Amino acid sequence: MSETELLDATPPAESQLDEDDRLKPEFVDAVLEAVEAGDAEAAHLKVAPLHPADIADLVELTPAEQRPALVAAIGDLIDGDVLAEMNDWVRETLVDALTATQVADIASELDTDDAVAIIEDMEPEDQREVLRALDPDDRAAIEEALSYPEESAGRLMQRELIAVPEHWTVGGVLDYLRGHEELATDFWEIFVVDPAHKPVGTCALSWVLRSPRSVSVSDVMAREQTLIPVDMDQEEVALRFQKYALISAAVVDGSGRLVGMITVDDVVHIISQEAGEDILRLSGAGEGDINEPVLDSYKGRVRWLITNLVTALSAATIISLFGGTIEKLVALAALGPLVSGVGGNAGTQTMAVTVRALATNQLTQSNTLRAIRRELQVAVLNGLSVATLVGIGVALWFGHVALGGVIAVAMLVNIVIAGLAGVVVPLTLERFGADPAVSSSVFVTMTTDSMGFLAVLGLATLVGPALLA
Amino acid sequence: MSETELLDATPPAESQLDEDDRLKPEFVDAVLEAVEAGDAEAAHLKVAPLHPADIADLVELTPAEQRPALVAAIGDLIDGDVLAEMNDWVRETLVDALTATQVADIASELDTDDAVAIIEDMEPEDQREVLRALDPDDRAAIEEALSYPEESAGRLMQRELIAVPEHWTVGGVLDYLRGHEELATDFWEIFVVDPAHKPVGTCALSWVLRSPRSVSVSDVMAREQTLIPVDMDQEEVALRFQKYALISAAVVDGSGRLVGMITVDDVVHIISQEAGEDILRLSGAGEGDINEPVLDSYKGRVRWLITNLVTALSAATIISLFGGTIEKLVALAALGPLVSGVGGNAGTQTMAVTVRALATNQLTQSNTLRAIRRELQVAVLNGLSVATLVGIGVALWFGHVALGGVIAVAMLVNIVIAGLAGVVVPLTLERFGADPAVSSSVFVTMTTDSMGFLAVLGLATLVGPALLA
Repeated sequence: MSETELLDATPPAESQLDEDDRLKPEFVDAVLEAVEAGDAEAAHLKVAPLHPADIADLVELTPAEQRPALVAAIGDLIDGDVLAEMNDWVRETLVDALTATQVADIASELDTDDAVAIIEDMEPEDQREVLRALDPDDRAAIEEALSYPEESAGRLMQRELIAVPEHWTVGGVLDYLRGHEELATDFWEIFVVDPAHKPVGTCALSWVLRSPRSVSVSDVMAREQTLIPVDMDQEEVALRFQKYALISAAVVDGSGRLVGMITVDDVVHIISQEAGEDILRLSGAGEGDINEPVLDSYKGRVRWLITNLVTALSAATIISLFGGTIEKLVALAALGPLVSGVGGNAGTQTMAVTVRALATNQLTQSNTLRAIRRELQVAVLNGLSVATLVGIGVALWFGHVALGGVIAVAMLVNIVIAGLAGVVVPLTLERFGADPAVSSSVFVTMTTDSMGFLAVLGLATLVGPALLA
Repeated sequence: MSETELLDATPPAESQLDEDDRLKPEFVDAVLEAVEAGDAEAAHLKVAPLHPADIADLVELTPAEQRPALVAAIGDLIDGDVLAEMNDWVRETLVDALTATQVADIASELDTDDAVAIIEDMEPEDQREVLRALDPDDRAAIEEALSYPEESAGRLMQRELIAVPEHWTVGGVLDYLRGHEELATDFWEIFVVDPAHKPVGTCALSWVLRSPRSVSVSDVMAREQTLIPVDMDQEEVALRFQKYALISAAVVDGSGRLVGMITVDDVVHIISQEAGEDILRLSGAGEGDINEPVLDSYKGRVRWLITNLVTALSAATIISLFGGTIEKLVALAALGPLVSGVGGNAGTQTMAVTVRALATNQLTQSNTLRAIRRELQVAVLNGLSVATLVGIGVALWFGHVALGGVIAVAMLVNIVIAGLAGVVVPLTLERFGADPAVSSSVFVTMTTDSMGFLAVLGLATLVGPALLA
């Protein structure tokens, strides 16, 4: 957001938000009723005081079929800042409805990173048309950004930044900033570069403000700085910002020259997205966005269900191998799922902990063995507790002590195996370069399902006559 | 981190980090070998060039029994900045080993929020001793912070900030900042306050830098500002920072007076933590930290397993009610888990999507019905696909068309019910003020387990003779 916009904005319509900063349903309904009634002016009046992030939310909360009418009514309020805040799926349908010139107008208002976010998802042909409609400078900047891989630092960075030579003084920097209207207005650090435009230091604005005019910037800047390679994946960028508590960072190309800047506000939503993604991946829910079209969600999820169906066959096969045992004691058909189910839960717990520890770089080769030993200890304690409970319960329920014993031992075995699988499977996948969040649960669930039934039915068969008599 | 420390620090020992910014195992081993060999000086030399965040990682990666020796060897390197970056569990054991005076020395170097983070987890008696050892100003600040609820804005904020009256000019601000050594050094915005010390505007430092000395700060500041109530929960704080892309924000007390400031770098790890927490909660893995003591992990997880054992009994009861049907067709014992398992997966997918959408404020009353309809559509498509597959498969496997039909219908029913439960259960829990991530999966799994078996065995019994003959 530019300075002038912030200054001109009326105070936020706080009363339209509930205590969690979400738009109140009454407000959304009132706007949509005005739109429905053809009263564009009333709708516009209500929406105008909102923050761009809230206008984006309003569009998302509006049913897809009513969105065109809403957009027609509040048209000019949906500017670049609103689009930059909007959910990708919703924005895409909105942008599709605009002409290339309209998109170009919006993009030229924005910093490179926000403009790229809007343009990168367009069809190649529409994209080319928008690029042609841009003025040459913006076009060159956006084309360069698009030349970097998706989800890389190059797409995330903005080219609007302040870089000054090492020999300047604080006073020189102040005069430069005050004398050049065209410079960036929102920045938190300035970068100090050598004649080859390679960053040699970073200077927080507060240090500049606190230093006398005569001091050289090279005496104020920090030489220790975290540089981001332009082709770094955004997940790595986010981890680096988090680890070193960065506010902004210089982006450098292959030869070490300063080509852009990433600020923390662009990274914050990536941090949240990457951390939240694991839960969706572990459950095989794909993108997991409630704005995703139904058919895309279906395609993403059904693949996962079919994979799970195939792995579940291993448990079914084990059960059918023990058909004879079940026929002799039908109670086993009821108790098998109990043991495999609780084992599955135990495995999922360990797996969730391991996947999180891997994602946050807490678990490395240095503490792998320790982590496995730790999870085994927890698993043995869990197993002993649950096995005791279930053993006594089953013995009482069926009035059958040997059956209680068999289920208790099977439960202990399955929970320990679950604990081991929950930590070893994600670690192994990670070691082989696979994303542990994506495929761990298939293997862990297959293990706990099969082992649960195998332990119950196998033990029952072994114990034999005493049990089945 | 203070300015001078940044300036003095030697360049980071980048070669000690792998491509994911994690300490290389060889490096950790080398340090620990030096410590083991009693060569404290060699260990110190290796560790000294590291960034505080990396020193914290080194301590975490060191086995608990070797930590005292490591700490003894690199002692002075473990300063407040390192402790502030350290995992809570690891820090706690380290701080326990220090004297009250040592902790007080460390705390007095830090901003209030970091000092509080170190002191808040101590035993009440140790805490009092540390407070007594602090100088009166620091002590008052920390005592006040501790008077706010845990995980509230009051604990998160720092009291070191720059506030200036409205009538000052930009030049006056610059002179004030240059003339007062004792002021905060790291800040990104200055707050403009009225005579009652209530914030009336916020001014990004870049705007101050770009304005001539004669301009009044009230002409540069943004009047639209996001204020954080001192008792706001940290999760809400994080969502607000994220939504409005804040770099820092003023914290106000009940009467609207400025009492502190929260900066985005303190919020970034909360965003990551809160987003990552849902996966741990859904799986019942408690804190889910690999540094948590084994007994704590056990206590957190076993409660969950026992809850799941009890709910799993509902499925077991249903199965045992149909003992007669199973005796007649043992294949049903193998196929029931298949239907309940895939249903469980489908339910988990929908649940993960719903929990994330709730956590990110994407799902509100305004689009609840739409979200339910959407999930039902996906569920029907998933159900039809998987049911067709499994029906044909079972018919071929057992050479029994009617059995294939029964399993297919049961699968369709269960997947649709799973989809419904996966969205309705978290929504209902949220509506009643419960955390949907904590208890959703108990209810959803119970539903899909029970309904899976009920559908298979119920349908088989209904179809009766044709199937069981």
